[in-house]
Amino acid sequence: MAFLLTFLGKGGTGRTTVAIAAAKQFAEQGYRVLLASQNPGPGFDLMMGAPIGTEPQELGVNLKAVQLRSTVLLEKAWEDLKKLEAEYVRTPFFKTVFGQELGILPGMDSALALNALREYEGSGSYDVIIYDGPGDLSTLRMVGSPEILSWYARRFRQVIADSDLGKALSPFVQPVTAAVFTVNLAGDNFAEPTERANAVLDDAKRAISDPNRVAAYLVTTGDEVAIATAQYYWGSAQQVGLSVGGVIANPARTPLNSSALQTAFDPLSVVTLPEHTGDWQPLIAALPDLKQAANAPKPIEIDIIHGQVKLFLPKFEKSQVKLTQYGPEVTIEAGDQRRNIFLPSELRGKPVKAAKFQGGYLTITF
Amino acid sequence: MAFLLTFLGKGGTGRTTVAIAAAKQFAEQGYRVLLASQNPGPGFDLMMGAPIGTEPQELGVNLKAVQLRSTVLLEKAWEDLKKLEAEYVRTPFFKTVFGQELGILPGMDSALALNALREYEGSGSYDVIIYDGPGDLSTLRMVGSPEILSWYARRFRQVIADSDLGKALSPFVQPVTAAVFTVNLAGDNFAEPTERANAVLDDAKRAISDPNRVAAYLVTTGDEVAIATAQYYWGSAQQVGLSVGGVIANPARTPLNSSALQTAFDPLSVVTLPEHTGDWQPLIAALPDLKQAANAPKPIEIDIIHGQVKLFLPKFEKSQVKLTQYGPEVTIEAGDQRRNIFLPSELRGKPVKAAKFQGGYLTITF
Repeated sequence: MAFLLTFLGKGGTGRTTVAIAAAKQFAEQGYRVLLASQNPGPGFDLMMGAPIGTEPQELGVNLKAVQLRSTVLLEKAWEDLKKLEAEYVRTPFFKTVFGQELGILPGMDSALALNALREYEGSGSYDVIIYDGPGDLSTLRMVGSPEILSWYARRFRQVIADSDLGKALSPFVQPVTAAVFTVNLAGDNFAEPTERANAVLDDAKRAISDPNRVAAYLVTTGDEVAIATAQYYWGSAQQVGLSVGGVIANPARTPLNSSALQTAFDPLSVVTLPEHTGDWQPLIAALPDLKQAANAPKPIEIDIIHGQVKLFLPKFEKSQVKLTQYGPEVTIEAGDQRRNIFLPSELRGKPVKAAKFQGGYLTITF
Repeated sequence: MAFLLTFLGKGGTGRTTVAIAAAKQFAEQGYRVLLASQNPGPGFDLMMGAPIGTEPQELGVNLKAVQLRSTVLLEKAWEDLKKLEAEYVRTPFFKTVFGQELGILPGMDSALALNALREYEGSGSYDVIIYDGPGDLSTLRMVGSPEILSWYARRFRQVIADSDLGKALSPFVQPVTAAVFTVNLAGDNFAEPTERANAVLDDAKRAISDPNRVAAYLVTTGDEVAIATAQYYWGSAQQVGLSVGGVIANPARTPLNSSALQTAFDPLSVVTLPEHTGDWQPLIAALPDLKQAANAPKPIEIDIIHGQVKLFLPKFEKSQVKLTQYGPEVTIEAGDQRRNIFLPSELRGKPVKAAKFQGGYLTITF
C-alpha cells in the first residue's frame, strides 16, 4: 500500500517547491515515489526543469512524475464507462459519444484526480505518492468526497424509496431494466453495481482516515494571512478526517518568527526550511520525517464504552462550530464544511446528551 | 445590468489586494459596488480589516462586501428547490431532508457561487460586482460551465432519446409523471422546466460572452512562474469565451521588468502598481480603467459570410491546440479545456475545410 501525502497552504507559500523536495527526499531514502501534479499551467514544468507528461515518467532513481490532466483522464474514464456499458447494456448508447468531445465541468477535476490517485495507489508500483494539487479547500472537498457521497447515497436512497416517485417507479423497474440490461438486475434493484460502488467508497474512506496511508502537512510563510490560512486548513482538514502531520515554514518571502509559529500550531512540530536558491539538497536535508502524521492528534476518536465522540477542530472559535441533529445523523459544521458522523451501531440513532467545545476538541456524549 | 469583474493569476500574486482596490476605485467613481469573496479562510477578513458576513454589508459609500460561503448558499438553494418541489410534486420527498444536513461535494462551490453572482446581478442593486474567487482554472471552469452544460444537455438528450433506455422508458413517462406531479407535464416531456433551465443557461452564456458585462484581468508579479501562469490563464480564459482586459503587475515580491512584461502580454496593456504599504489610495490611483475589456481581442469572432470562425488563443503552442470533429460539433482543445462550438445555423453541420493556427489565432474555415 502506498502512502499518499499532500501539502496545504495559501497560494504562493511554496507548496510545490516543498512537494518536489519531499518527493526527492523519499526517493533518496529508497522509496519508489510518484510525484503527481495537478497544476494545469506551465508552472510545474518550469519548477521541475523539464516538461512532465500525462503518463508517469522516470526523473531519477526511484522517482517518477506525472501531470494529472483532466481532459486526458476524462477520455480514459469515458472509455472505462463504455466498457462497463457494453458489458451490461443490450444496446449501448454512450458508445455514440466520444471522450474527445467532453468538456470539463466544475468538480470533475477533483473526481478525476482522486480516481487517478486511487489507481496509482492500487497499482502496487509506488511506496509514496506526493499529490501536488490546489492545496486549498478544494483539495479538502476532494478528500472529503467519499464520506459525503456515502452520506448522500444512504440518505437519499431511503427518501426516494419512501416517496411517491419511488412507489410510482417501482412497478416499471423490472420491465425497463429487462429491456435495457443484459443481466437481470431487477431482483434486488441494482444490488451488484451499488455494492461495487459502495466498496470503492468504503476503501477510500478507510485509507483517508488512516494517517499511515493518507496525510497532509501545512506550508506557510511568516506572512500573517498565510499563517491564518494554514491554521484554517488545519482545522478544515480534521473536518474531512484528514490527519495533519506538521508544519513546514518557508522563509522565502517574509521574515519568520519561529517561536510564534510554534505557538500558532501547537502541538504540531514546525520545521523551517532554508531559502531555496536552486540547489535542492539543503531543502531535502531540512525536511522533517514526513511519515509521522500518526503521532499528531487524530481528527476523530470514538469511545463506544463511554458513549463519546471526540473531534479535533483546532483554531476554530466556539461560535464557528455547530452541532445539529436535523436528520437521522449528527451533523458537524465548521469552516464552511459539513460532516455527518456515521456512528458505530452501538451509538447510532441515540440522541446527543451533551456537547462541549474546549481546547480545540469537540466532545459529544450520547 | 451589472458589470462582473474578476482577477486571474497564480496564488500569492496579490489578486485579493487588487480586487479590494478595484472595488474601492469603482465606489469612489460613484458606481454601486459589491465585492463578493469566495475565500473560505480568514484571509479576506484580515485584508479587509473587518469580519465580512454572508449577507452584503455596507463598508463605505457605494461599497458593500459579502462572503460566498457554500454551506449557507447550499441551505438557501435547498430551500428554493423545496419550494419548486412543493409547487410541482404531489407528495414532496425532498422536504424530509434539511439543508442543514447537506455536505459540500466538489463542484458545488462553483455552482453555488455562480448562482449567487447571477442573483446579485439580477437584483438591480449593483453597477459593478467584483468576484474574488480562486482566480485559477477552477474559476474558468465555473465561467465555462453554462456553455458546457448546454452542450451536455443537447448532446445527451438526443443520445438518450434514440437509445433502448429512452424507448423502454417512454411508455412509462405519462403514468409516472401523472402519479407524481401536480401538473400534466407528460405531453411534451418536461418542456416547461427544460425551457426554463435553458433560458437561465442562455442568459448566462450571453452575459459571459459580452466584455461589457463580464471580464477578467490578469495579475502577476515579476516571478517567472507567475508570469507563465498568467499567460496560461489568458489563453484559457479565451477558451471559455471570457474576455481579458489587461494585466496588473504587482512589484511586491520580485523586481519587475516592465518592457519584458509588455512583450509577454502584447497586445494587452500592462499597468504596474506601487508597493502596498497599507494605504489603499496609491493602489486605487494606479489602477487602469477596468471597464475597457471590450477593446481587448475578442475570444471568438464568427464571420458567416466568409464561413470563418476565428478564436484568440494567445500563448499556446500550435502543438497544444487540437481541433476535432468527432461528434456533431467542432471541438477545440487547449489548456486542459475543451470547447464545443455551437455554430449559427448557416454553418452548423458543415465539415471543416481548413484550419490554421497563427499569431495566437485559430482560424477555421467551413
